[in-house]
Amino acid sequence: MKNETVNSGYRLGLDIGGTKMCAVLLNGEHLVEHYRLSTPKEGPRHFWIMAVAVLKPLLERAKKDGKNIIGLGLGIAGTIDFRKQKITNSPNLPFLNGIKPLEKLTENLKPSYPLFLDNDANCFTRAEAVLGAGKKFNNIYGITIGTGIGGGLSLNGEIYQGAHGGAGEPGAMLVDLENKITLEDAYQKLTQNNSRILAQEAYEGDPLAEQIFQELGEYLGMIFANIVNIVDPGIIIIGGGTAAASDLFLSTAKQVMTEYIENPEARGIKIVKSKLGELTGAIGAALMVK
Amino acid sequence: MKNETVNSGYRLGLDIGGTKMCAVLLNGEHLVEHYRLSTPKEGPRHFWIMAVAVLKPLLERAKKDGKNIIGLGLGIAGTIDFRKQKITNSPNLPFLNGIKPLEKLTENLKPSYPLFLDNDANCFTRAEAVLGAGKKFNNIYGITIGTGIGGGLSLNGEIYQGAHGGAGEPGAMLVDLENKITLEDAYQKLTQNNSRILAQEAYEGDPLAEQIFQELGEYLGMIFANIVNIVDPGIIIIGGGTAAASDLFLSTAKQVMTEYIENPEARGIKIVKSKLGELTGAIGAALMVK
Repeated sequence: MKNETVNSGYRLGLDIGGTKMCAVLLNGEHLVEHYRLSTPKEGPRHFWIMAVAVLKPLLERAKKDGKNIIGLGLGIAGTIDFRKQKITNSPNLPFLNGIKPLEKLTENLKPSYPLFLDNDANCFTRAEAVLGAGKKFNNIYGITIGTGIGGGLSLNGEIYQGAHGGAGEPGAMLVDLENKITLEDAYQKLTQNNSRILAQEAYEGDPLAEQIFQELGEYLGMIFANIVNIVDPGIIIIGGGTAAASDLFLSTAKQVMTEYIENPEARGIKIVKSKLGELTGAIGAALMVK
Repeated sequence: MKNETVNSGYRLGLDIGGTKMCAVLLNGEHLVEHYRLSTPKEGPRHFWIMAVAVLKPLLERAKKDGKNIIGLGLGIAGTIDFRKQKITNSPNLPFLNGIKPLEKLTENLKPSYPLFLDNDANCFTRAEAVLGAGKKFNNIYGITIGTGIGGGLSLNGEIYQGAHGGAGEPGAMLVDLENKITLEDAYQKLTQNNSRILAQEAYEGDPLAEQIFQELGEYLGMIFANIVNIVDPGIIIIGGGTAAASDLFLSTAKQVMTEYIENPEARGIKIVKSKLGELTGAIGAALMVK
């Protein structure tokens, strides 16, 4: 592989979500080591200390293996101003709003290698496109359904950022104009920030919980159809905590989606679950390092 | 210019819409001649005779100038199966459903040059991207609002077709899930296939007509926001008959759009009218010829 020939070091990936911080160490595309901690929510000071702490075991492993770190990719939940390398809106980690995370990480980590920034849903999509369920496709749309809803579009192996870095925000799409409800609004209202317990109730046969996932499926189907009608990806890949319960909503989503896809050729599009599991975001962050 | 150096012939472009057939003759990117006829709706036989007739004055001009035709691009209103080069759905010209238009044109025209096919909204977007209002942008979203609503996405000078040729169908997007109303449905219901007369009434101060354009503006704003949240173009360019009356709905559309764009950087996106006017589609068809 080119990366291994030209540069024999390891790549670091750090994925910071609303619940967990995951870090991975890659040798080429091979996972060497990973580590995970809960995301501290008390405020910035403890947050950055922990962001460095989650990397420590991996830095030690690289040292033990006699390998350099050639770069670190950071994936973070929130909207990013890529020009300024600044977080403009992180609903689940509000103390990050207005922060330049690579500067903060540099201060605390003092790295001798370059750092790269992206949002977590783009990292998810990148990893699935390069190493996961999207490997055989040129156009991949990834959607993360977890604490919030995120998305990313990969075209020919590269994340498509758009003109202002604002591409791939399915959560912001309106599902109800009259009542001004976005997919993210509808998702939060339906799941009440507790989709795991709700899924358990649905699996135990609670009709109200089942109904909620049906409704979620309808909203997602509408948004999937919108995505196909605009960018017509070869595959849609879903991930995040709620995707684990996809059998509760995915068949409804597919049914609604198919009904509203304009091009008959595009109606057979597959929607599949992430192949790389919990580490997808961190792997996708590491893959930013070239 | 490269095209002129390598190949000194003229390019033909033919745009077939629900109302008019427009043909252009290009020398490089320069318009040499154009011609226009009404689209016959009686059935296929007369239709293909007229499609050849609209090209005749241009073929004669090329001959007079001592120039070869190096190719013809055909833009047509409807959904296209690009793999089979077949029209799958043409709501305004239903006798074209299931037809391979390039085969039909070849039978009737007997050309000695290659033919290329695309839908009319992609042709509109291509022309505006290469020669019109999108010239200075890498990512352009074009929307045609005329007999129906179409769209196209141009990335770095090329039309993005998607995995199944189904990209850029804003008319198919849902604006109301509960009542299963797409933008195209809402548009047809609001304008009753008569947006020109409706616009005149609104300009004369008819409150009902004004109200209808306000509603159209709200729906379009919702769809513009969806487009920005998914593909984040550098500019949105509108064309088609109804776009001429854009002062009746565009400020409402922009207001609704801005409210629902997730990324603050993307909120300043410009929505402008086509620069090339009535011939845009035919020019974009000719530009398919390389």
